[in-house]
Amino acid sequence: MTLEWINAPLATLNTSAKEQGLERQGQLTKPPGSLGSLEAMAVRLCAMQGVQKPSVDNAQVVVFAGDHGVAAEGVSAFPQVVTGEMVKNFSRGGAAICALARQNNAAFEVVNLGTVVDLSAMENIVDNTIMAGTANFAQQAAMTLEQLTQSLAAGKAAVDRAAANGATLFIGGDMGIANTTAATALASWATGQSVTSLVGPGTGLDAQGVTHKGQVIEAALAKHADAMTSPVEALRHVGGLEIAALAGAYIRAAQVGMAILVDGFITTSAAILASKIQPEITDWMFFAHASAEPGHQAMMASVGADTILDLGMRLGEGSGAGVALSILKSACVTHNEMATFAEASVSEKPA
Amino acid sequence: MTLEWINAPLATLNTSAKEQGLERQGQLTKPPGSLGSLEAMAVRLCAMQGVQKPSVDNAQVVVFAGDHGVAAEGVSAFPQVVTGEMVKNFSRGGAAICALARQNNAAFEVVNLGTVVDLSAMENIVDNTIMAGTANFAQQAAMTLEQLTQSLAAGKAAVDRAAANGATLFIGGDMGIANTTAATALASWATGQSVTSLVGPGTGLDAQGVTHKGQVIEAALAKHADAMTSPVEALRHVGGLEIAALAGAYIRAAQVGMAILVDGFITTSAAILASKIQPEITDWMFFAHASAEPGHQAMMASVGADTILDLGMRLGEGSGAGVALSILKSACVTHNEMATFAEASVSEKPA
Repeated sequence: MTLEWINAPLATLNTSAKEQGLERQGQLTKPPGSLGSLEAMAVRLCAMQGVQKPSVDNAQVVVFAGDHGVAAEGVSAFPQVVTGEMVKNFSRGGAAICALARQNNAAFEVVNLGTVVDLSAMENIVDNTIMAGTANFAQQAAMTLEQLTQSLAAGKAAVDRAAANGATLFIGGDMGIANTTAATALASWATGQSVTSLVGPGTGLDAQGVTHKGQVIEAALAKHADAMTSPVEALRHVGGLEIAALAGAYIRAAQVGMAILVDGFITTSAAILASKIQPEITDWMFFAHASAEPGHQAMMASVGADTILDLGMRLGEGSGAGVALSILKSACVTHNEMATFAEASVSEKPA
Repeated sequence: MTLEWINAPLATLNTSAKEQGLERQGQLTKPPGSLGSLEAMAVRLCAMQGVQKPSVDNAQVVVFAGDHGVAAEGVSAFPQVVTGEMVKNFSRGGAAICALARQNNAAFEVVNLGTVVDLSAMENIVDNTIMAGTANFAQQAAMTLEQLTQSLAAGKAAVDRAAANGATLFIGGDMGIANTTAATALASWATGQSVTSLVGPGTGLDAQGVTHKGQVIEAALAKHADAMTSPVEALRHVGGLEIAALAGAYIRAAQVGMAILVDGFITTSAAILASKIQPEITDWMFFAHASAEPGHQAMMASVGADTILDLGMRLGEGSGAGVALSILKSACVTHNEMATFAEASVSEKPA
C-alpha cells in the first residue's frame, strides 16, 4: 500500500456555476446581502457541485474511532475503555451524532480503526482495524509508516463509499479517548503556537490535569522534533488513527469534488494537516463551529476561515457539524426555492 | 375592544420539569456540558413545556405585514409598494421565510394588518386589515388607541389559532417597508440609547440616507416625547401595526405557555416593548440571531440575552428564526434521543 495518492490533484471549482449562483442571489426577493453568510455558503456550494441549485440533502456522516496509547499518561478525564463503549453506542444509535444525523436524514457510518478492546462485528460499524490503538507517543512514534498509510487509506475508502452512494456533502467525526492530546500536539506543530496556549480540558480535566497534559505534549514534541519533518511524519509520530483517517478522507473528498463540513477541534487538526499536504483543500471546506476547546481559535486563525456556529460545544463525534448541517440546508433552500424579483413581480431597489 | 388582557398573568415555568431535564442532561452519554448551549436550550424548553422530552416539531410561523406612513419621509431604500408585493410573494411561497418554514415542516401563516395597496383575498393570508398603513409618525401618532388595540389583538388571535393547532413554538415575522425606522424609534425609547447609536441602513440605505433616517426618528421622538408615557403609548405613537401585533402575540404566547423564538431587529423591538409591559416575558423567549442592523446589539444588551446565531442576516420576515429553529430541534433530538450512560453501558468520568 502506498500513500502517493494524497498528492494527486484536487478537483477544480466550477467558476461558471459560481458566477451563476452569485447572479441568482442578486435576483432573489430580498435586499442584496440580507441573508448574510447563507448567501456565500450557497454560492460556494454552487462552485463545488457545479450546479446552479446546490444540495446537501445527501450528506454522509462518517465517525472514525481509534484508541490512543498516550492515554496511559493520564491525559483524559475518561477511562480509555470508553472509546470501545462509545463505538457500541454509535452502533445502537444512542450517541449525539446519531440523533443529529437522523434529524438531517444524513447517512451514518462508523469506521473502527482499532481500540484496546476487541469489538465483535456490529451493525453500522465498518471494521477497519489497523492496530489495537496507537503506541504511546510519549515513548515512541504513534504509528509505523505502514499503519499511517492504512489509516489515510481508510479515510479515502470511506469517501469512495460515500461518493458511490451519491453523497453531496462529507462530514467526518472522531471518537478516541485522549485524542485532544494528539490534536493539540498536531496543532502546535502545524501552527507554531505554544502548547501552553493551545492545551485545554478535553472531556473535562481540571487545571492540574491540563497542566500535566501540556507537559506530556511538550515533551513528546521535543522528543520527536527532528523526525517530524513533514505533515506525514507529524501525523505518524503524534497523530491518531482517526485523525489520519480524517485527513485522508478530506483529501479524497476534495479530489473527487465533494463538499466538506469540518466539525470542531479534532477534525480541524486533521484539516490543517491535510492543508499542509494540499494547500488548496480549504476551498472545499466549511467549518461547522467554534469549539470550546481553547486551541481551536488559533487553528481557525491559521486556516483563515470563520465557523458557522459558536454554541460552546466540545463533544466531538462530528456533532457540531451535525448541527451546522441544518444551516447549510437553509442556505440551499433559500437559494433554490426563493422567487426572483421578476417571478414574483416585486419592485427592486431603485438604482 | 379593550387591551386589559395584556396585563393578565403569564404562565408559570415548570420547575420540576426543568430539574428533571437537568438531571437527564447529566446522564446522557457525553462529557457534562459538552453540548454547550444546546443543553440549556433543551432544559429551558422542558420548563416551558412541562415535559421531560420537549419538542419544537409543531412550530408556527406567523408573518405580520403592515405599511408605515413614515415611508413618505424617504427612510427606506425600497418603495412602499413592496410591502403588498411581498405579501403576494408570501402567498405563493416564494419568500425566504416560506422556504425556511418548509425546511422545518413549520406551519406558515401571514396576517395582513393593512397596506397602502388593497390586497384581495389570497391563499395563506389572514385578512386582518386595520388601516391602509399607519399614519406618518413624523407628523402625528402612527395609530389611534383603537387601532393599536386591534393590532395587539391581531397578535393575540394568531397565537390562539396556533395554540388550537397544537403549536409548541411560536415564531413571529415582520413585513413592512420602513419598519426599521419604527423599530429604531422604539428601541431608542425603550433602551435610552441615542438614535445615532442605533440607526442603520435597513434594506440598504447609503450613509447619507442613514443620517436622514436618524434625523427623522430624532425629530419624531422629540415631537411625541411628552405623550410617550407608557409602552402602549410608545407603540401607538412611533410603532407599527405589525410591531404591535408581534408584541401582542408574544404576550399571549407567554400567557398560554408557548415557547417563543424571536427573530431579529424588528421582532426584538416588539419583544422589548412586550417586556416593558410584562417584565418576566423573556423567560419564554429564545433569541434567534444577531441582526446585522447596528441597533440590534444594544437591544440584546438591554434584554440581557444571547442570540443563538450570528450569520450577518438582516432580512426580517422571521427568516433568522426560521434558520435557528433547526438549532432548537438539534437541542431537542440530542436531549430526547441520546442514550444514558446506564442504558448504553458506557463508563462515566471517575469522581
